[in-house]
Amino acid sequence: MGAVLSLHKITSPPQCDPLEALSALVADDLAAVNRLILERMDSDVPLISDLAQHVISAGGKRLRPLLALAVARLCDYEGTRHQKLATSVEFIHTATLLHDDVVDASLLRRGSSSANALFGNQASVLVGDFLFSRAFHLMVEDGSLEVLRILSNASAVISQGEVLQLVTQRDTATSEQAYLDIISAKTAELFASACRVGAVVANKTAAEDDALRTFGLNLGIAFQIVDDVLDYSAVQEKLGKTIGDDFREGKITLPVILAINRGDESERHFWQRVIGGGDKQDGDFVRAQEIMRRRGALRDAMERARHYGAIARDSLGIFDSNPYKAALLDIVDFTIERKF
Amino acid sequence: MGAVLSLHKITSPPQCDPLEALSALVADDLAAVNRLILERMDSDVPLISDLAQHVISAGGKRLRPLLALAVARLCDYEGTRHQKLATSVEFIHTATLLHDDVVDASLLRRGSSSANALFGNQASVLVGDFLFSRAFHLMVEDGSLEVLRILSNASAVISQGEVLQLVTQRDTATSEQAYLDIISAKTAELFASACRVGAVVANKTAAEDDALRTFGLNLGIAFQIVDDVLDYSAVQEKLGKTIGDDFREGKITLPVILAINRGDESERHFWQRVIGGGDKQDGDFVRAQEIMRRRGALRDAMERARHYGAIARDSLGIFDSNPYKAALLDIVDFTIERKF
Repeated sequence: MGAVLSLHKITSPPQCDPLEALSALVADDLAAVNRLILERMDSDVPLISDLAQHVISAGGKRLRPLLALAVARLCDYEGTRHQKLATSVEFIHTATLLHDDVVDASLLRRGSSSANALFGNQASVLVGDFLFSRAFHLMVEDGSLEVLRILSNASAVISQGEVLQLVTQRDTATSEQAYLDIISAKTAELFASACRVGAVVANKTAAEDDALRTFGLNLGIAFQIVDDVLDYSAVQEKLGKTIGDDFREGKITLPVILAINRGDESERHFWQRVIGGGDKQDGDFVRAQEIMRRRGALRDAMERARHYGAIARDSLGIFDSNPYKAALLDIVDFTIERKF
Repeated sequence: MGAVLSLHKITSPPQCDPLEALSALVADDLAAVNRLILERMDSDVPLISDLAQHVISAGGKRLRPLLALAVARLCDYEGTRHQKLATSVEFIHTATLLHDDVVDASLLRRGSSSANALFGNQASVLVGDFLFSRAFHLMVEDGSLEVLRILSNASAVISQGEVLQLVTQRDTATSEQAYLDIISAKTAELFASACRVGAVVANKTAAEDDALRTFGLNLGIAFQIVDDVLDYSAVQEKLGKTIGDDFREGKITLPVILAINRGDESERHFWQRVIGGGDKQDGDFVRAQEIMRRRGALRDAMERARHYGAIARDSLGIFDSNPYKAALLDIVDFTIERKF
């Protein structure tokens, strides 16, 4: 269990990478979260520890716990309660990743073999449940019913979003509104909840809670849209997962929806075959990328993402200027401009 | 009861004004709707007829029934069921206007004295209920449980939106997300439902229903944002209602939220006094407009509206090109670029 979580090098600001800058700003808190992650994912059953360690120490951006940590400090909180709760948020996120990879039958996650590829589907499902339970255990230790309400509700909403996504898989008739509803649920709700948890520990007013919900929700929507764009536009090596995964899985994302809505009959026939019918041939992914570029689907999906980013930015306006606010604003830009 | 509803001159396309063009395209249907409106708002109680006639023959854009009519034709519907249902949609809209004016204590509506100013609050409340009932009566005559489900749900959502708006009145801490939730409910839901009703009579698939929901919902959000911008930016004579109404009522709209979020301390003090405290002095409205311009609040609210307009436009992509589709796309642009 002695794995060192070294993804985020903790050095002093200013940084070029906004994610590293934010990590540096809450370095002590983040170190505590990483300790808690190692401690709380431990189990007497070696398979659980091994699998949990595989998926959690693979790193990821730790974006959600970072939000909880930074928001608490933005709200002048000086205690340590947010550390356990940020850990809880990361466990919920990791649990949904594990279950997602099983549902999607993904082979890669963050550039490494996915847990289900290494340990099998059954173990991944069960360890996801284990992490879920540990997440709630951490919340119960904290003792705030408000936090329990926020995160249990978020968990239910996430599941609903995942189910909705499953139902629309390969359905080329999925509307942009349905897509927005899905990503709001499966992704943005946890971003919003992570931020709100930071506000709860700092005893903030309803106004600040609402501003932070707006921030998290819209940041989360922007994040997911950009994720979905990157699956068609990223450079494989930088992305750290297989480019074209969504395409292969027939996942209906915004670039696909825009391309379908704007396509002519032959293009719609193409989308129906490759996404709807799942009948893919060599060169189909390149053709999909080419159509998307021609129809402005990737460009306009990014334009949509910027809209949500703008709402997120504006929502922090009510908070006094401080390094945490500046770092969170940079995270909005990073979320949209990132290449991975 | 012989009032002639002459707001929309019915002439042949092409037109400069997209609203007139759309009206001309469904001229026969619209004439039938106007006949139904006159017929169904009639009552043995003269006060009801007089008041209903006052508010309905004042005109308005008839945008919602036009959507229901045009969508049915877009979907190749050739019958007349949509005429009664479009009338029902307009009655629901008119009922909410009547109740709104009572709640807001408005003196002007569409450039004329509001019904409550002329007939009193009690009559306005009751005639609103009368029109609501007539709306449902029309739906029951049509006999579609699906339409009843859509429009009864919309009515409940609208009421919730109005209550939410009431609760946030004068609350300068209202977030942009809360604002979006409110206008989605109080305005956009009926736009979406009007479109969906057109799809129901044409027996369209779930895919087309969903595309039309996306169209109506996002058009409605754009419409309300622009409405809220016009209250600070329009030329009084063109607007047909009192400019600055929202400001006087302390209504929290997007331009206000953006101005507050971006304001410095003295500006926030200003907003707290005039909106939060309702303590207005001469020149405050002009100062509000000036701050909004300086902070880019009106410009960026319009930018937000364009985002929703873009989603609405894209959502019609799955329909074959025909004059109805072209006219509906023009309505999106009109909604955003209008000056009244």
